[in-house]
Amino acid sequence: MTRRIEFWFDMSSNYSYVSSMRIEAAAARAGVGVAWLPFLLGPIFAELGWSTSPFVLQKAKGAYVWRDMQRQCAKHGIAFRRPSDFPRKATLPMRIAAAHADEAWMPAFCQAVMAENFAHDRAMDDEALCTGLLGGLGADAATVLAQSASPEGRAALRRNTEQAQGRGIFGAPTFFVGAEMFWGDDRLDDALAWAARREFGEGES
Amino acid sequence: MTRRIEFWFDMSSNYSYVSSMRIEAAAARAGVGVAWLPFLLGPIFAELGWSTSPFVLQKAKGAYVWRDMQRQCAKHGIAFRRPSDFPRKATLPMRIAAAHADEAWMPAFCQAVMAENFAHDRAMDDEALCTGLLGGLGADAATVLAQSASPEGRAALRRNTEQAQGRGIFGAPTFFVGAEMFWGDDRLDDALAWAARREFGEGES
Repeated sequence: MTRRIEFWFDMSSNYSYVSSMRIEAAAARAGVGVAWLPFLLGPIFAELGWSTSPFVLQKAKGAYVWRDMQRQCAKHGIAFRRPSDFPRKATLPMRIAAAHADEAWMPAFCQAVMAENFAHDRAMDDEALCTGLLGGLGADAATVLAQSASPEGRAALRRNTEQAQGRGIFGAPTFFVGAEMFWGDDRLDDALAWAARREFGEGES
Repeated sequence: MTRRIEFWFDMSSNYSYVSSMRIEAAAARAGVGVAWLPFLLGPIFAELGWSTSPFVLQKAKGAYVWRDMQRQCAKHGIAFRRPSDFPRKATLPMRIAAAHADEAWMPAFCQAVMAENFAHDRAMDDEALCTGLLGGLGADAATVLAQSASPEGRAALRRNTEQAQGRGIFGAPTFFVGAEMFWGDDRLDDALAWAARREFGEGES
């Protein structure tokens, strides 16, 4: 089987941003393919009784996280500016991404959307923004937006979110290599090493 | 000033165990000294409204954490066995450690206590255990135990815990280099690199 990592992310999640900006290069170095799988953290946090991100609910952790983001982004050479609004909605671009998982432009679209929020402190849940980014990536924006708004289009993101819950995902980013789960940008390199070690025909863990 | 990292830990915390087993070698390689600072996570979790570890309260995260511990300990060559009781009390050995911060045997004592729990699945909060470990490290166990049980001895751990709260610590392990905070075993190497870069006379961040 092909060496492959699943990258489960929410565009509103700051550590998902860090992974999204470095995963393709890191995976290429490891000889591993990446499947981008957007899902909504909101319903998973709601199940835990949380109304929003733990970085908002826990003040001390929240204060720390933004300093940590500065340091991590500096370390990896990723542009970063603390969003003035967090967590920011991203339903429209996440629907677009989920409904177009097989399109070559999908990862670059996700990176560009997240950079709007985490590098430029701008809104993500915006039709004009998505139209512009899709056009820049050579996609037919009008068709993509219409497909994403259709019942089938909307169902794709809902399905990803249900799968994430079913597989025990409790935060983002989360990586899977077969059945093996890795949580957090801090485990990206371990997950890639795990995927690179797997041999053709090996079992699920 | 001397290059130095503060290592804030709770003996009951599993990721504190990982750091405790690797910090001395890693710090020596970086040319950095380590100050071991035991504190109680319980009062900090209680402030967040948590009755115990989030790894117990959040089922999906809890299930993941023990698999992650296996992988992390294997990666670092650290013995590990999942404790059948978690989080395990460690008040007595933590009092001993806090009240004897300047003793040469203190770090080795902490490592040995935590290995009882995280490598051998045995209780930590035990006077016979502490007596045996102290004796093995060349300390006068009877004197150490008496000092740790005195009002001054007990105050040391309470003071560390209050300081941890005052400095915004929300989990363990936490590292400080001057005013710069790093949370989690995953940030140990970053914290050591930060400490190693600091020059004589440099400011606090």
